[in-house]
Amino acid sequence: MKKIDLADTNEFSPISMRSFVLHDSPYFKIINFNLGAGQLFPVHSHQIEGQLSIVVLEGEGEFLTDNASIPAKVGEILVSDISDPHGVKAKTNMRILVTIAPPI
Amino acid sequence: MKKIDLADTNEFSPISMRSFVLHDSPYFKIINFNLGAGQLFPVHSHQIEGQLSIVVLEGEGEFLTDNASIPAKVGEILVSDISDPHGVKAKTNMRILVTIAPPI
Repeated sequence: MKKIDLADTNEFSPISMRSFVLHDSPYFKIINFNLGAGQLFPVHSHQIEGQLSIVVLEGEGEFLTDNASIPAKVGEILVSDISDPHGVKAKTNMRILVTIAPPI
Repeated sequence: MKKIDLADTNEFSPISMRSFVLHDSPYFKIINFNLGAGQLFPVHSHQIEGQLSIVVLEGEGEFLTDNASIPAKVGEILVSDISDPHGVKAKTNMRILVTIAPPI
């Protein structure tokens, strides 16, 4: 059992998104990504079984697929197969929490 | 791929916590629990393999184990084995997001 505080990873870079692995176990991986306004988490996918959730903790932007853009704001969650193309574009500074099960 | 909006489940009850299953797949289950001020998510455990995360979305209270109480506030996350006793006590109205992998 462990406690994680997202206040400890509230860091942004003017160059590109920052990522912080908060937890990694055989069951799931939890990562905090912080995107500055305008920054991109490029659309990607992995050809493996599993799903991920993307929780918007702060800010707003868009969830991306290979052919669509879905508005994303605080309190919204995207659930995607790991094998489906997914990404994020930040409009404002944006903090997201990604949980991947099973972990990549 | 689906989008979930936590604004759709922002409901509390004066009687006890409310729970909303947001997603359930072979990989993980995602549940939003809303506890009114003073309400309790009783300490419990299941003797199965796996882990869960509890993300505090709003409010504050305590993460509970069988013998400890850990302050819990917005932006804090508890990660626990499913087999370790865990629970939550709300001080203010409190919204939490629980992800269980693999799902129970």
